[in-house]
Amino acid sequence: MPPTGPGAIQISRIMRPDDANIAGNVHGGTILKMIEEAGAIISTRHCNSQSGERCVAALARVERTDFLSPVCIGEVAHVSAEITYTSKRSVEVQVNVVSENILTGVKKVTNQATLWYVPLALQNVHKVLEVPPIQYAGKEQEEEGRRRYEEQKLERLETKERNGDVIQPVINPGVTMKLMDEVAGIVAARHCKTNIVTASVDAINFHEKIKKGSVITISGRMTFTSNKSMEISVFVDADPFVDESQERYRAVSAFFTYVSLNKEGKPLPVPQLVVETEDERRRFEEGKGRYLQTKAKRQAKMQPLTQQ
Amino acid sequence: MPPTGPGAIQISRIMRPDDANIAGNVHGGTILKMIEEAGAIISTRHCNSQSGERCVAALARVERTDFLSPVCIGEVAHVSAEITYTSKRSVEVQVNVVSENILTGVKKVTNQATLWYVPLALQNVHKVLEVPPIQYAGKEQEEEGRRRYEEQKLERLETKERNGDVIQPVINPGVTMKLMDEVAGIVAARHCKTNIVTASVDAINFHEKIKKGSVITISGRMTFTSNKSMEISVFVDADPFVDESQERYRAVSAFFTYVSLNKEGKPLPVPQLVVETEDERRRFEEGKGRYLQTKAKRQAKMQPLTQQ
Amino acid sequence: MPPTGPGAIQISRIMRPDDANIAGNVHGGTILKMIEEAGAIISTRHCNSQSGERCVAALARVERTDFLSPVCIGEVAHVSAEITYTSKRSVEVQVNVVSENILTGVKKVTNQATLWYVPLALQNVHKVLEVPPIQYAGKEQEEEGRRRYEEQKLERLETKERNGDVIQPVINPGVTMKLMDEVAGIVAARHCKTNIVTASVDAINFHEKIKKGSVITISGRMTFTSNKSMEISVFVDADPFVDESQERYRAVSAFFTYVSLNKEGKPLPVPQLVVETEDERRRFEEGKGRYLQTKAKRQAKMQPLTQQ
Repeated sequence: MPPTGPGAIQISRIMRPDDANIAGNVHGGTILKMIEEAGAIISTRHCNSQSGERCVAALARVERTDFLSPVCIGEVAHVSAEITYTSKRSVEVQVNVVSENILTGVKKVTNQATLWYVPLALQNVHKVLEVPPIQYAGKEQEEEGRRRYEEQKLERLETKERNGDVIQPVINPGVTMKLMDEVAGIVAARHCKTNIVTASVDAINFHEKIKKGSVITISGRMTFTSNKSMEISVFVDADPFVDESQERYRAVSAFFTYVSLNKEGKPLPVPQLVVETEDERRRFEEGKGRYLQTKAKRQAKMQPLTQQ
Repeated sequence: MPPTGPGAIQISRIMRPDDANIAGNVHGGTILKMIEEAGAIISTRHCNSQSGERCVAALARVERTDFLSPVCIGEVAHVSAEITYTSKRSVEVQVNVVSENILTGVKKVTNQATLWYVPLALQNVHKVLEVPPIQYAGKEQEEEGRRRYEEQKLERLETKERNGDVIQPVINPGVTMKLMDEVAGIVAARHCKTNIVTASVDAINFHEKIKKGSVITISGRMTFTSNKSMEISVFVDADPFVDESQERYRAVSAFFTYVSLNKEGKPLPVPQLVVETEDERRRFEEGKGRYLQTKAKRQAKMQPLTQQ
Repeated sequence: MPPTGPGAIQISRIMRPDDANIAGNVHGGTILKMIEEAGAIISTRHCNSQSGERCVAALARVERTDFLSPVCIGEVAHVSAEITYTSKRSVEVQVNVVSENILTGVKKVTNQATLWYVPLALQNVHKVLEVPPIQYAGKEQEEEGRRRYEEQKLERLETKERNGDVIQPVINPGVTMKLMDEVAGIVAARHCKTNIVTASVDAINFHEKIKKGSVITISGRMTFTSNKSMEISVFVDADPFVDESQERYRAVSAFFTYVSLNKEGKPLPVPQLVVETEDERRRFEEGKGRYLQTKAKRQAKMQPLTQQ
């Protein structure tokens, strides 16, 4: 059933050859861009649902997301979004992506994502407006939402010292994430010289705005390899070169995890990353830490299920 | 010599993989978009050919068009348009599409379309300007044009009660028609799970404008199947969500007919549509009516030829 | 009447916001891409006009081209091409670009370009086929063509030692040239921090093929500045990383000249390039040589006109 209420939206389209790599697997970045579009629509619509100053919802953060199954050219990707929590100045959107093979009828959950948006006044993008509250199904839903809100706030605080505090609109954050995925994909393909796909993207915070007319440079390097996965660190640097007063700065950064697939779509072992310098060794250890933490979290989530 | 007169323009380009479905057949929507671009250029040019207020020509209506032969990736689509009639406030454009295989030299007429444009003042898009008259080759051409003009006016009047009266500019109607065709194609492919192509598009009226920044939702459902064709009803609903005063509304609707093709490009039988509810039955009967009417018209057109 | 003979084709389309920079001037690369598409259509069509092995025409060389006047968003670019010379294994195509403001009716010649194509067998892209000869209007036209053919052959020979001999198909050379122009534009904008447009592109030779799936890296550096122009050297390096046997190599290189425009579209003085190293000085002197040579050629072309 497509979502039809005011609290839901669905974006669907057929995956085209230019959405995919030469093996026919759709880029994770294509999916991320669709997810962001759905999130931007639903949160902008919600934040304008009461009379008052008009605004656009700017992406502040995307939570870590796993890609559960690859999407292929010719399949239809259905991206549905709904608002699941509102704080005074931010909106949480949860997005589900389902791929449908319209010839066989097979549908698969591709991924689920959580995004945070902040309403910025149309007339003055430096002014954050207030968000109209949503109705929750019950007390529990509201409290669960508040818990997620506090959690991401804490995580943002941790990265804040590195990246600065203020939430700022990035021009078309969906396009930025798509390019980041493309860079990560090139790094991964160079490393293992096989067909590779995005397995997950770590939380991305949008702290710094990117001005119209800026040149952005996106770079990536592999930081860690497990037996069957590669972690790539991706940076977006913005150079607002027309404005002399401002230097090039780090606008966004994130970790992408890639896997290599054989022709049947099963994960292949990947060559181990050779680390030489002290910095490379440190980054490898940090990557290993993230890998083990994610693995532990996944197992913790599974446990209740396996115990039932 | 390229066409340089006020009465002609040609748009050509090579069909790319992302213009086509996975069987390599170019989407009818790609062709519709090129047709609309050619029509918009020639009618905007004509309406500004006299000194006076500057304007843009907005698409008001596309007459029913049949796709006579599928176009493939790598072929060149040549879309040529000329103005064939002008009323006081509207322009009729006739468009021919020819596909050319540049390897074999084979050319095929793909389809012919008739579009109606209305000049809207650049400074105030609610103001319809006057159209400079064209020169006709003879009295007969002019009268034939007037007859077509009255005919479409009548047909528009019939749908007017349902859809509202005023002609309004839709942002990039070519893009809208391309998306409508994509939705119809998904509905058709889901139904028959084979390679499908657009066979025809019923007349489309653009009654209601779509404002910049609106979210449009395009939905489709199958209404009727004959032995070898499927009729899909497609709706475009616009939600100008930043503007509170306005509710979501129906902006455009149309019927698309699809056929299923085997590997040699011959039409295949299609599974019959199962109707259950009263509404479904009614829509099926209405679709059958349109199907029989079109069939009768086509045979009527043929008759003079067979009698010669 | 649209051009239908074997000797002509026209491609036209409306310039969109994403074809232009933020000042509204269409990128030279957008125009180069359209020029290449027209050239590829007409030469592929011609080389398949006789029975025999099917082929595609691959771009071998683009002669130096000047951009005479900037094109703006909303204008229609008309690109018309015709075959002007055929050697045994190559085709010369001449292309004219005219921009048309469909509101005011003003038309301007934007640029003229000469391209050389080579027919490669569809079944074996390493095999160059023979080109059917064209009919010339007169003996003079044929001799003029032969003179141009010998001239470019000589020039290619000069660059051959640097770049290698064999002409090979680059995947979508139009896209490659568009990206090259984009890189040159960023280098120019960074240097003068104003609105910049492509003024000319030096001859580009396509010596080396770029395989599907390769990563291409396009880099540029400023080599020379005159009072009102900047020369940027652009390189395309291809990395066929999936094929271990092959190293990264230089696939294409070219010089782009940019000018800076004020709000009225008049050229502005540009900051002089500061050269420090021996290499920078050498490149600057070479750039100055090219600049003076082009200036001399342009004046030589003018002279006969003023003496008539």
